[in-house]
Amino acid sequence: MSALFAGVDLGGTSIAAALAERDGRIVAEAETPTHSHEGPDAVIRKIEQLLVALSAKTGATIQAIGMGVPGLVDVPTGVTKFLPNLPTQWRDVPVATTLQQALGCPVSLMNDVRMATLGELVFGHGRTAPAPLTMGFFSIGTGIGGGVVVEGRLRLGPLGAAGELGHQTILPQGPRCGCGNRGCLEALSSGPAIAAEGIRLMRMGLAPKLFELVGGNVANVTPREMLASGDESTREAITQAAEYLGIAIANVVTILHPELIVLGGGVAELGNALLVPIRDVVRQRVGMFPTDEVRVEKSQLGDRAGILGAIALAAKAG
Amino acid sequence: MSALFAGVDLGGTSIAAALAERDGRIVAEAETPTHSHEGPDAVIRKIEQLLVALSAKTGATIQAIGMGVPGLVDVPTGVTKFLPNLPTQWRDVPVATTLQQALGCPVSLMNDVRMATLGELVFGHGRTAPAPLTMGFFSIGTGIGGGVVVEGRLRLGPLGAAGELGHQTILPQGPRCGCGNRGCLEALSSGPAIAAEGIRLMRMGLAPKLFELVGGNVANVTPREMLASGDESTREAITQAAEYLGIAIANVVTILHPELIVLGGGVAELGNALLVPIRDVVRQRVGMFPTDEVRVEKSQLGDRAGILGAIALAAKAG
Repeated sequence: MSALFAGVDLGGTSIAAALAERDGRIVAEAETPTHSHEGPDAVIRKIEQLLVALSAKTGATIQAIGMGVPGLVDVPTGVTKFLPNLPTQWRDVPVATTLQQALGCPVSLMNDVRMATLGELVFGHGRTAPAPLTMGFFSIGTGIGGGVVVEGRLRLGPLGAAGELGHQTILPQGPRCGCGNRGCLEALSSGPAIAAEGIRLMRMGLAPKLFELVGGNVANVTPREMLASGDESTREAITQAAEYLGIAIANVVTILHPELIVLGGGVAELGNALLVPIRDVVRQRVGMFPTDEVRVEKSQLGDRAGILGAIALAAKAG
Repeated sequence: MSALFAGVDLGGTSIAAALAERDGRIVAEAETPTHSHEGPDAVIRKIEQLLVALSAKTGATIQAIGMGVPGLVDVPTGVTKFLPNLPTQWRDVPVATTLQQALGCPVSLMNDVRMATLGELVFGHGRTAPAPLTMGFFSIGTGIGGGVVVEGRLRLGPLGAAGELGHQTILPQGPRCGCGNRGCLEALSSGPAIAAEGIRLMRMGLAPKLFELVGGNVANVTPREMLASGDESTREAITQAAEYLGIAIANVVTILHPELIVLGGGVAELGNALLVPIRDVVRQRVGMFPTDEVRVEKSQLGDRAGILGAIALAAKAG
C-alpha cells in the first residue's frame, strides 16, 4: 500500500481535503460543509471521516497531515487560539493532537493564508524563482490575508500571526476594519470593500451598465461584475482599490525587499485591471530603490494554494 | 602584538573610527571631517590614515574592518552604488578592495543604518533578548533609516536595500519626500519635518515659549527645543510625529511580528514624549493580534550603534 500526504483546509463554510504525492500531485480530493455550529468535536470527526474515505478510495495510507485554519494557532502544539469566523468554542481546541490520535500520523496546523503562502513557495511561483526566495503573498477575498517568506523561510512569529499584510494601515483616518483598527488595507481593497463602492455608485445612478448587468440587485454586485459592466465609474473604483494594494506592496518592498509578490484570492482574478495599476504604484512609490527585480504576479495555484501548502507542510513533517 | 577589530562610520560630514575587542569593548576611537568634495580617493586615504593611527596608538594590529556608508552598497563586493548625501563620483567606488589592499585585512561594507541595526542586535537590546530575535530598528534623525532582523538574521536584500522603514507610505497624499514618493514616514516624522512644524507654529505666534527659548531664530528650532519649550502646540506636533511613527511600527508588526522595535537617532532622545504615544498607537492599531510581547524601546547604544555594528561585522569576517 502506497503512502500519501494529506492537506486539509478548514473554512467557515466548508472543509476541503486532498491526498497527494510528495511532489504535490493530487491523487484524490473531497469537500464537505463545515456546519461549525455543531462544535469542534463534530467538525474534527468530519475531517477524520473525510480523510478515511479518501484513504479508502485511493488504497493509500496517510503518512502525515497538514491543515490550514482561518485564524491564529499555537503552531508547535496545533491548538487553535483565535478563529474570528468560527464560534467561540473553537478557542483552545487541541485539533492536532485529536486528529493525530484518531489517524495515527503527524498533524501540523497553521493559519490558512500562511499555508497558501507556503503552497505558492513550494509548488507555485516559488518553484522557478531563484533560491533563497523572499516573497510576500496577499490573499484578497472577503478579507485580505497574507504571508511572508524571508530567504526561503516562512515567517510565523508568535501564534503564527506574522504576515497579516491586510492589516497594514493605509489611510490613518480611513474606514473601520473588522480588526478594530481604521484604514487597514482590508477595509479598503477586500471584495466587500470594493463591492460596497460599486453598490454606492449603482444606487447613485453612476453605474448604469452595472445596474443592468445585476438587474438592479445590490446582492449581486461583486468586483467581477463591476469590471465586466464596463462602467467607467466602477473601473475607477477597482483602480482605486489597486492603488491601495500598491501602497501596501510598496511598504512590504521597503521593509523586506522581496523578489516576488504574489496575489491570490478571488479578487486577484481581476487580473490586469488590478495588476497594471498596482505595478505603476509600486514603481512610483519605491522607484528610488533597486526594485526592477521585484515582480508582482497573480497566484499560479489559485484556490488550491492552501491545500497544496498543507500538503507541503505534511511532506516536511512526514 | 594583540589584534583588534575596526569599525568605521562614513558620514556626509565626518568619519568616525574605533578599534575594539571581539566583545565590543572599544579600545580607542577617532573622528575626522569627511570633506567629501575631495573625492573618493582622498576620503579612502583619510580612513586608511585614521586606522593606521589608531593601530599605532593601541599597539594592536587590525584583524578585520567593518564600515557603514550612507546609502546602497553591493554588499558581497563592497562597491558603493548610491550614496544620496555624497557627490555623484561616489557611484561604483570599490571601497572594500581599495582599503583591503592598503591595510591587508578583510573589509566589509554595508549601509550605515543596517550596520546600526546589527550593532543593536549584537551589543545592544539584542544581547539580552531571547534568540532567535526578530527586530525592527528605526534611526530617526535628519532622515529616517532602518533595518530588520528576521529570526536572528539581518535582512539585506539586493544592494542591502531592505529595511528602509522610513520610506513606508503613511499618508498617500502627504508631503513630498526626498526619495520621490509622497507621505513617507521620513517626510512626516524626521527631525527636519518635526522642526518645520515647530517653525510654522512659532511664526504664527502659536509657540511663544519656543520663540523665547530660541531667541526667535528659526535656525535654532529642533525637536529637542520644541519639547523643552513647554508650549502645548509644539508638544502636540511631537505627538503627531510619534503617531505616524506608531503607524509605521504597527505596519512592521503586522508584517513581521517582531519581539522588539528599537528607536535610535537624535530624535529618539526625546524619550517618553515619543515612546508613550507610539506604544498607544501600536496597541490601538494591532491590538487584535498577540502583540503583548512586542516591546518598543530606545536604543541602548545611542550614536555608537553604527560603529559597534561595524565592529560586529568585522568580528564575524575576521
